[in-house]
Amino acid sequence: MVKYVKIKYELIKKDGNARLGKLITNHGTYDTPIFMPVGTLANVKMLTKEELVDAKCAVILSNTYHLWLRPGADTIKKAGGLHKFMNYDGPILTDSGGFQVFSLAKNKAKDITEEGVHFKSHIDGKSLFLTPELSMEIQNKLDSDIAMSFDECIPYPATYDYVKQSTERTLRWAKRGKDAFDNENQSLFGIVQGGEYEDLRKYSAVETVKMGFDGYSIGGTSVGEGKETMYKMVDYAIKYLPEDKPRYLMGVGEPFDLLEGVQRGIDMFDCVLPTRLARHANAFTYKGKINLKNSKFKDDFTSIDEKCDCYTCKNYTKAYIRHLFVAKEGLGGRLLSIHNIRFLVKMMEEIRQAIKEDRFLEYKNEFLSNYEDKAKL
Amino acid sequence: MVKYVKIKYELIKKDGNARLGKLITNHGTYDTPIFMPVGTLANVKMLTKEELVDAKCAVILSNTYHLWLRPGADTIKKAGGLHKFMNYDGPILTDSGGFQVFSLAKNKAKDITEEGVHFKSHIDGKSLFLTPELSMEIQNKLDSDIAMSFDECIPYPATYDYVKQSTERTLRWAKRGKDAFDNENQSLFGIVQGGEYEDLRKYSAVETVKMGFDGYSIGGTSVGEGKETMYKMVDYAIKYLPEDKPRYLMGVGEPFDLLEGVQRGIDMFDCVLPTRLARHANAFTYKGKINLKNSKFKDDFTSIDEKCDCYTCKNYTKAYIRHLFVAKEGLGGRLLSIHNIRFLVKMMEEIRQAIKEDRFLEYKNEFLSNYEDKAKL
Repeated sequence: MVKYVKIKYELIKKDGNARLGKLITNHGTYDTPIFMPVGTLANVKMLTKEELVDAKCAVILSNTYHLWLRPGADTIKKAGGLHKFMNYDGPILTDSGGFQVFSLAKNKAKDITEEGVHFKSHIDGKSLFLTPELSMEIQNKLDSDIAMSFDECIPYPATYDYVKQSTERTLRWAKRGKDAFDNENQSLFGIVQGGEYEDLRKYSAVETVKMGFDGYSIGGTSVGEGKETMYKMVDYAIKYLPEDKPRYLMGVGEPFDLLEGVQRGIDMFDCVLPTRLARHANAFTYKGKINLKNSKFKDDFTSIDEKCDCYTCKNYTKAYIRHLFVAKEGLGGRLLSIHNIRFLVKMMEEIRQAIKEDRFLEYKNEFLSNYEDKAKL
Repeated sequence: MVKYVKIKYELIKKDGNARLGKLITNHGTYDTPIFMPVGTLANVKMLTKEELVDAKCAVILSNTYHLWLRPGADTIKKAGGLHKFMNYDGPILTDSGGFQVFSLAKNKAKDITEEGVHFKSHIDGKSLFLTPELSMEIQNKLDSDIAMSFDECIPYPATYDYVKQSTERTLRWAKRGKDAFDNENQSLFGIVQGGEYEDLRKYSAVETVKMGFDGYSIGGTSVGEGKETMYKMVDYAIKYLPEDKPRYLMGVGEPFDLLEGVQRGIDMFDCVLPTRLARHANAFTYKGKINLKNSKFKDDFTSIDEKCDCYTCKNYTKAYIRHLFVAKEGLGGRLLSIHNIRFLVKMMEEIRQAIKEDRFLEYKNEFLSNYEDKAKL
């Protein structure tokens, strides 16, 4: 492992706009596109690093806002950084806290100024003030491999004028964050905003790229804007991003969204979906999601997917997992988290193989023709 | 591994009344005395078999009453027995359901007849009727390595007359259970009752032994009767138990109780304590229990016990585990469960080594002189 380098991205080949690449980090080199599970509070809920490694996870994501509140950036710095604190030696990406400020702030009340955002803690209502500089300071202390710029997650829908002003401010925040950034071991990604407006997306992409970040994210809004709008925003922005840097679509983890994202040239995805679904007894399968609480699984002594190579499928039956959920035993959520994460990680392996063999669209069509969850497309 | 044999116990040596022995089961041979973690609902809460094996667990216990209600004995029988259902290939002991009927029945209301006990489910209030024959039928279906006789957990305190009648009925129930027992792969233990009365304990022990069980448990009461009374009940009964069969003290897991029990000649203990304490952020140490939520651990980047060989102590700091509990992350309970189980299992390893070297009392005194939790002695 190479220490103390900014991450590098190498494009290996393209199949349409889908990209097979390589992400070289301080904590290992991984082929892209990848799915990154979320470890909000310095742990992927219920799981240990061995389970993440066993599921062949590459990068995991952790949340700056949550860690700022608990246990605090200074505690993690004293521990020697997030990797040591949580005992994970793969790459870690931290978000900027921006999304949480807009989605989690108590009563959703916030006061956006040029300087930063005033809001109240979702835990105890305490007044907080997050700025681009503070987001960088916290992320620098966390010492993740990849830090994210602090942006405004624009409400949806919003007027052209509001989005324009917000996008311009996010550009100023990106510059301030970049100037304040002070950790030579860490990379910093810019975030393209611009809402649903084509010219603003272009403007944001071009100006963000001019600043020269180590990678680029295409930011969404603070609420679900609908799939069509999301893909439109990706289409508007992605053509202005450089080929030699990774592109990251935040908060996306539904199988069909991974396929749509890869098709447009996205390299990195993250989502709480696999672990959140797991805690509610839902498992991904190639035929769609199944709910393990369903009584039809009471005496079903087969695994969730006989062909799946995850720990859960190799060791436990649907009947047993159903029993754990019916009896409210936490092991159920743990076992399904392992399966769901492995499912998305394995799907990305298959996608990479398909790109390699110039048959990404074929893979996508075959996947979707088997997947019975199309209502959400 | 030998299949289809009743368990065997071989006494290796004694140090005072403390016994070093060998328990030969259908699922492996283990030195005794042992501590058995509890997997009430066919799982030791939050943990997998690999973690139990890694903590060097021998037998684990599962609860007949709970499994009878969920998922039902027939589902487990269809799965091929409890080992296959829960994916654990070490030995499993099931209790009879007796204790739960007396401790968990809705509103504690129950109607004890000669035939059995009428009571209501703690889950949905449904009327249930458990008899010695039904307890055996359920346990036979679960196909545990060791089944327990169905007994009445006598209230405490209780009059001599009540205890006498109850003890006599428990003997009749033991006989009926033994007659109904129908699983040649499974062993059956008798339970000595008799409350706090010396002559009734003797009577119960002698009569139970006459029936010829594969091992013997010294039963307590349905409520905490106090340590002194518990040890008195053990003392009254244990001298009448045969040397060539294992002796089991149910529901005991405090370190000082393990020491007191071993000193009196007990070979097997079980308790929910290590996992229950873990879920409340408490960890065993050789200096007494510590609560990981304590703010003094905020920046303590050492493990719970630097000398402990458990997975948790080898990989995680007190500061990290504290953070998990403060942030209400389930991984905290999982990590402490591993530590606490390993602590008791390792303590039994040390006890066995001490017996081997004829220094059990020395070990006990040294342990207790370091252990700052003596209020409970």
